[in-house]
Amino acid sequence: MWEIAEQDLGPIATGAAILGSGGGGNPHLGRLRARECLRAGQRMRVITPGELADDDRVAVCGAMGSPVVSYEKLPRGDEETAALRELENVLGRHVDAVAPFEMGGGNSMAAMVVAAEAGVPLVDGDGMGRAFPELQMTTYAIYGAPAAPSAIADERGNRVVFAAVTDGRWLERLARAVTVSMGGHAGVATAPMPGEFCRRVIIPGTLSLARNIGLGIEEAVRSKSPPWAAVVAVTGGSRYLRGKVIDVERRNTSGFARGSVTLEGTGEFGGRKVRIDFQNENLVLWEDGEARATVPDLITLITTDRGEPLTTELVSYGSRADVLVLPCADLLRTSQALSVVGPRAFGLKTDPVLMAASGTP
Amino acid sequence: MWEIAEQDLGPIATGAAILGSGGGGNPHLGRLRARECLRAGQRMRVITPGELADDDRVAVCGAMGSPVVSYEKLPRGDEETAALRELENVLGRHVDAVAPFEMGGGNSMAAMVVAAEAGVPLVDGDGMGRAFPELQMTTYAIYGAPAAPSAIADERGNRVVFAAVTDGRWLERLARAVTVSMGGHAGVATAPMPGEFCRRVIIPGTLSLARNIGLGIEEAVRSKSPPWAAVVAVTGGSRYLRGKVIDVERRNTSGFARGSVTLEGTGEFGGRKVRIDFQNENLVLWEDGEARATVPDLITLITTDRGEPLTTELVSYGSRADVLVLPCADLLRTSQALSVVGPRAFGLKTDPVLMAASGTP
Repeated sequence: MWEIAEQDLGPIATGAAILGSGGGGNPHLGRLRARECLRAGQRMRVITPGELADDDRVAVCGAMGSPVVSYEKLPRGDEETAALRELENVLGRHVDAVAPFEMGGGNSMAAMVVAAEAGVPLVDGDGMGRAFPELQMTTYAIYGAPAAPSAIADERGNRVVFAAVTDGRWLERLARAVTVSMGGHAGVATAPMPGEFCRRVIIPGTLSLARNIGLGIEEAVRSKSPPWAAVVAVTGGSRYLRGKVIDVERRNTSGFARGSVTLEGTGEFGGRKVRIDFQNENLVLWEDGEARATVPDLITLITTDRGEPLTTELVSYGSRADVLVLPCADLLRTSQALSVVGPRAFGLKTDPVLMAASGTP
Repeated sequence: MWEIAEQDLGPIATGAAILGSGGGGNPHLGRLRARECLRAGQRMRVITPGELADDDRVAVCGAMGSPVVSYEKLPRGDEETAALRELENVLGRHVDAVAPFEMGGGNSMAAMVVAAEAGVPLVDGDGMGRAFPELQMTTYAIYGAPAAPSAIADERGNRVVFAAVTDGRWLERLARAVTVSMGGHAGVATAPMPGEFCRRVIIPGTLSLARNIGLGIEEAVRSKSPPWAAVVAVTGGSRYLRGKVIDVERRNTSGFARGSVTLEGTGEFGGRKVRIDFQNENLVLWEDGEARATVPDLITLITTDRGEPLTTELVSYGSRADVLVLPCADLLRTSQALSVVGPRAFGLKTDPVLMAASGTP
């Protein structure tokens, strides 16, 4: 058990946004909201999955929607807590802990805020070890967590309960439709898992990892060493390219930000050109017509000078970026997982192209 | 209290579809399903609104979606009952009676089936005295019925609860999104009303009226007199035109069937041409560039020979039809109601053009 302090918020937001692989929500808004919680005296206690009791009830909480929307339609910040309250109302009991869906600048913070407001610990880990665009793409869902009852809430006071759903894909489909009709952003809390199950399927330690990435970047900036090298050192990833963004194509459809970003290599990477396709998150990195890295591995862009995450909704023409590829968790490498989070699950015509396993679960 | 017998189903389905003003769902499927219920020994007891006790809980049940869809994606027929069961589950109690949203070939039968399956009486009346495309367009909602908790269910076992919604328009918006994502057809049960409230806001006697319209048409066909005259006699409406359908434009968008049907007058109406715009239901009748009849009055088409209702999803090129205009209920003529069900509520640029009041509530 450790407690998140105000000085942890910056590093966690940065590190989680880098793990977010281009998605995972707006890191700035989430951070402000988390700071507000801490300044109001709320506590953010973090436990390892090993600290969960077998029969603890762990709810998974976060925001749903296109991250693009949250820049124009500011969340109130309590949508996720409203969703958890409605879920508890349906269950007739409180939950014992909260876990994030995913790592990402927004959704790491969202889970922290819910845990603080509900007065329960946050589990250090998440269901993706990164961010993905759809609800069924968590290790929780892949390895059999129930999809119902789950709840969703907006900033106006609308609250919807998915009382029975046939599977995680139907939860995604129904919740996405509700999110879009709520204006493109909503808070979600899904069916609580027993602690024993959560311990087996969660990707552990990712909140700590996010903080370490953020601290590594801060140290690199202070010591004028390259931020990308700090990220690679902490994550076991590699740098694929340094370049300049020469094109961004982005459209907001069916509740997702979809498009691609094209970079031209600079310096030692001069003369090369890569395109990265995304659906909220970066999905595949193409060079010379071939997929060089794909989901579930993490493809993530950071600014060359300060190591700031360039999410798919913020990246723009002229950005100078290091393109990093980080190995996904082993729990995402099984055939069971690849059928849900591999490139073909996103309609991409390529087999998975993955780094060597990281050795993490 | 009276009980619906098998021989009532045909007249009710026909009469309700005529009151449905082009919408209100597929009369054939609903009738088959209702017959199945009766043959299985289930009872359909009908009570007048006056027979409700003050504190009875009356749930409003029916199908939601574009009627076009139900011809390709057959409902199972128990979606509405599943929605009611989920609603009762949320409330922790059974309801005492069921009322229809609207009159229409499908939704009159749907409410009858739910009442039979739940073993509760059906209230003789409905919230529109006709059919309308959206949930907030009932006298229940217009005069203040709560919008939550309401429930929606599909044929796969998915069940969604609207636990809190800010108003009837938000219920419509959220439920429509869920219906579309469920494939375009779903069963709905909305927040129970107290019997005392229901008595004041329901449009009474419309189920009996539907049966009387249907019986009148049967008698007319038997005696070789014109079916349209029988409808006009029972409803206090009038015939606007007899003609031939020369064009139908229909598209299925956002869960609705939208479009227009154009008729050319025949016989004594020769040389005239009218266009009727619809959104599931017929909304406005145009002739010579002027609105000659509009919602909330009923614009309804029946075949000239047998008096069969021509709903907006069935009407086709070459159909021979009598175009009838029937007066809406007084509860739909208040300014409060006209702001919700008048032509401008549908985006039409015309003031209401209504017949003299019928004298019914």
